[in-house]
Amino acid sequence: LWEAKPFADNMPDVEKLVIVGVGLLGGSIAKAALDRGVARHVVGVGRNAERLAAAEQSGVVSSISTDLGTACRDADLIVVCTPVDQIAGHVVDAAAACNQPTLITDAGSTKGNIVAALPQKLSGGCRFLGSHPLAGSEKTGFEHATSDLFVGRNVIVTPTAAADGTDIVRLEAFWTALGARVHRMSPDEHDRAVAATSHAPHLIAAALALATAGEHLPLVASGWLDTTRIAAADPAIWQPIFAANLAHVLKALDSFEKTLSELREAMKTPNPTQLVELLRVAKQSRDSAAANK
Amino acid sequence: LWEAKPFADNMPDVEKLVIVGVGLLGGSIAKAALDRGVARHVVGVGRNAERLAAAEQSGVVSSISTDLGTACRDADLIVVCTPVDQIAGHVVDAAAACNQPTLITDAGSTKGNIVAALPQKLSGGCRFLGSHPLAGSEKTGFEHATSDLFVGRNVIVTPTAAADGTDIVRLEAFWTALGARVHRMSPDEHDRAVAATSHAPHLIAAALALATAGEHLPLVASGWLDTTRIAAADPAIWQPIFAANLAHVLKALDSFEKTLSELREAMKTPNPTQLVELLRVAKQSRDSAAANK
Repeated sequence: LWEAKPFADNMPDVEKLVIVGVGLLGGSIAKAALDRGVARHVVGVGRNAERLAAAEQSGVVSSISTDLGTACRDADLIVVCTPVDQIAGHVVDAAAACNQPTLITDAGSTKGNIVAALPQKLSGGCRFLGSHPLAGSEKTGFEHATSDLFVGRNVIVTPTAAADGTDIVRLEAFWTALGARVHRMSPDEHDRAVAATSHAPHLIAAALALATAGEHLPLVASGWLDTTRIAAADPAIWQPIFAANLAHVLKALDSFEKTLSELREAMKTPNPTQLVELLRVAKQSRDSAAANK
Repeated sequence: LWEAKPFADNMPDVEKLVIVGVGLLGGSIAKAALDRGVARHVVGVGRNAERLAAAEQSGVVSSISTDLGTACRDADLIVVCTPVDQIAGHVVDAAAACNQPTLITDAGSTKGNIVAALPQKLSGGCRFLGSHPLAGSEKTGFEHATSDLFVGRNVIVTPTAAADGTDIVRLEAFWTALGARVHRMSPDEHDRAVAATSHAPHLIAAALALATAGEHLPLVASGWLDTTRIAAADPAIWQPIFAANLAHVLKALDSFEKTLSELREAMKTPNPTQLVELLRVAKQSRDSAAANK
């Protein structure tokens, strides 16, 4: 893990920022970039003209377009904030629409599938460099966008071996200027890490919600509600994430199931010390992660 | 599931309430009973004279005693709020200390083990009738006790077939007067329900916290933190709960693991509809439980 230094005196100067997909994340990036003076002008791109007009009216973006070609002219930075199975296609389209060599990033939860789907070189000298802001919510839509969504949150920037050093520094400065703590990892390291910290937990929460009998639901208390909270997220957003990161998610679930078996065995042992010790280490792991927030 | 009617015009009149074990739960019962005029006098019983004196000084209880015998004289209701592996012993001791036939209840997370450990008849005509307020917290100690801890929360009252009808009505009125929603179940039904809604989720949260590699902990976001929150609880409190409810917890884990396998298989299927459908039902289950709070 590598942590970027803050760039307070090195604010990236983005004349024109293009956000493809103005939902919670795209809207929050737009709002944060405008409010913090990181970008002078933010164009919101999408397919739904009515939703886009509402986003413009609410001040989340400076202007809007349903046409990627028009939007990408003279862009300094493009952030693709669409579902993970559509990002690669939108990156290729955005590159084709640029009239100058432009840095393109994203906000997707997986990286290996995107890098694998992109051509080795994008058109017109454009470069893709992945980003993953670990700042979701079960809320969706630009209506919930806030300019402080990234403050103190982790953002992982995922250069491949071929990435340009200046692009990396510039992109990390962009996220730092939005208030984020930036980490740098390869796309594969990233996918392995988020399988363990986000994707497998999501499937575990869903399994618990599914396995609880309907007759018992009126009796759940805060413990069950916390443990299953992420199961309330939109299945249409999560299915493509599982598909894109399948191998790493299965490996993380293997490791979880092995640990759960150890806890079961410890529970069956008459001597309580083994279970107490496992619960103690679990508490330590949870406490240390929480203390870091 | 059976839900008790509110007893607004049928406030139980407890002249002397005895709380054995003045921690978060015992302290909150004491405080709530005093503040709501449910009990005139509340005696806190414990082994640690210094802690007890602090509880008395903070107004959580009216008086204190380290001697169960003195405390239980003329008691109208006794609530044993000690760890689940000590409750049966404290119930027997309290009954032996009573100078009149007294109703004794508890606040433990398991019931079958307590009922199994008690003699068929307690001394002096005393009766045990179990209670489980589903209102915990990762906080411990009377310092965190609040008189509204039970407002809107579920309390399960667990009569055996031999229980006296008047005792049941009186105990349910007591909890209702503290603001709780009262449910009635047999000790075994209770243990099966809380294995599914509380004990198995606790072990699952601990397994996830344990299975997450230390190098990935700095990258966890709100999803992982919520899913693992209950793993931060005190192992010394939870080990006896798992031991007391072992068979039901193992069955609940079987059901969870079967469901997780189904989700894994659905994830591996090229057709996404099966996984989306399972995630949708999981979301429905979670949403319906949350809507009920």
